[in-house]
Amino acid sequence: MVTALRLDIEYDGADFAGWAEQPAARTIEGVLRDALDVVFQVRPELRVAGRTDAGVHASGQVVSLTVPGAAGDLDTRRIRQSLVGLLPKDVCVRRVTVMPHDFDARADAVSRVYDYRMLTGMPSPLRRRRTLLHWGPPLDRDILHACADLTVGQHDFRAFTPTDTQHVFFARTMLECVWREDEDELILRVEADAFLRQMVRVLVGTMLECARGRREVGSFAALLAGAPRSAAGPTAPPNGLTLIAVRY
Amino acid sequence: MVTALRLDIEYDGADFAGWAEQPAARTIEGVLRDALDVVFQVRPELRVAGRTDAGVHASGQVVSLTVPGAAGDLDTRRIRQSLVGLLPKDVCVRRVTVMPHDFDARADAVSRVYDYRMLTGMPSPLRRRRTLLHWGPPLDRDILHACADLTVGQHDFRAFTPTDTQHVFFARTMLECVWREDEDELILRVEADAFLRQMVRVLVGTMLECARGRREVGSFAALLAGAPRSAAGPTAPPNGLTLIAVRY
Repeated sequence: MVTALRLDIEYDGADFAGWAEQPAARTIEGVLRDALDVVFQVRPELRVAGRTDAGVHASGQVVSLTVPGAAGDLDTRRIRQSLVGLLPKDVCVRRVTVMPHDFDARADAVSRVYDYRMLTGMPSPLRRRRTLLHWGPPLDRDILHACADLTVGQHDFRAFTPTDTQHVFFARTMLECVWREDEDELILRVEADAFLRQMVRVLVGTMLECARGRREVGSFAALLAGAPRSAAGPTAPPNGLTLIAVRY
Repeated sequence: MVTALRLDIEYDGADFAGWAEQPAARTIEGVLRDALDVVFQVRPELRVAGRTDAGVHASGQVVSLTVPGAAGDLDTRRIRQSLVGLLPKDVCVRRVTVMPHDFDARADAVSRVYDYRMLTGMPSPLRRRRTLLHWGPPLDRDILHACADLTVGQHDFRAFTPTDTQHVFFARTMLECVWREDEDELILRVEADAFLRQMVRVLVGTMLECARGRREVGSFAALLAGAPRSAAGPTAPPNGLTLIAVRY
């Protein structure tokens, strides 16, 4: 008898080598499986909605797994408390939910929502871990909005992911792509059915090139039709990026 | 010829042994004087509005100093840029202003404003550096508000500062003391003409005792009339506390 669980997770990605477990690296998957091993005496396989890269944060990551035992014998509140106690301070399981046995956090996700945060003025020590400090020439807001508008819809996003990719299909549907300003922060909210690796960060790096006048908006539009990675801009640093939510 | 400067400063206090310079400890005053020494070839004496303790943050700290040279010869924008480049990432000089020669960031301050932030639900890895995680029984909001209301006005606050004090006078005037809720955070905003050392943290620690039912509100009121330190509650951890602003 096994039971499917959903874990809602938050983490500060700064001191992790990303989500995916690797030998000899501190990863979110690794510390989470270690904690689950203590609670369930098995080191369960995990399915995750967003495989975040090194340095990327999450406030709304979702993980699924199956654990031994019948649902009626599991006290999800105690499981959560045990995991919180076992996990390091930069990862927290905020919710544990019993799910139908075939729930899959990755395959069942309808969309993922990320925010990319940038500071447009002075450096801010209190926000430095979660917010990119943008140095350099001022950014043309109209151009940022124009790029964001172009990004919405279904496109071939292969220009926005490393060439040495494990992806096979590059078509993704961008459901929302909006820059907003909040005092001295400029925040890109993106929601897509799924994201290619580093896709949000290359989108941000390329939009910033446009907004600084180093690239035409027309050339940005052309990238969305399956251009090679070399045609797009740089990959923005990971610390500005946070996985906010997963929709099912 | 010397010129008075005002520096507006932000810092993440987590990795500092507080504001005040000490031999063999990393302090905000120490790293700031080191950077000023590079820019001005003098290690100027600093006057500071709020001498924050180890682990306490500031988004609106104010410092004054005098530097060699006439005001007309000083490029405050370049001074700021130089200081930002020289300072570690957890301190930033956000503004440099030329002031009348007798400006004193400490003596001229009319009031100081602090926020104390607490999480009332789950731990949050992304906010752990700036927000106290409150474990334990639920807090009675009405009691928190009652304590805050009692705190407003002029009182003898000696119960809220360590006994081995350098303070001589213990009367302070609390201008504002209000708890507000913002999603899963409970935030105390305090503004007073000046604060005794650790005063906000002992106020918070004592209010939490009341709100958990471990202390009567009547006994809290009695503390405000010059009771000894031993009569008040514990000192809340420093990481929840941030100096927000100084008024002149």
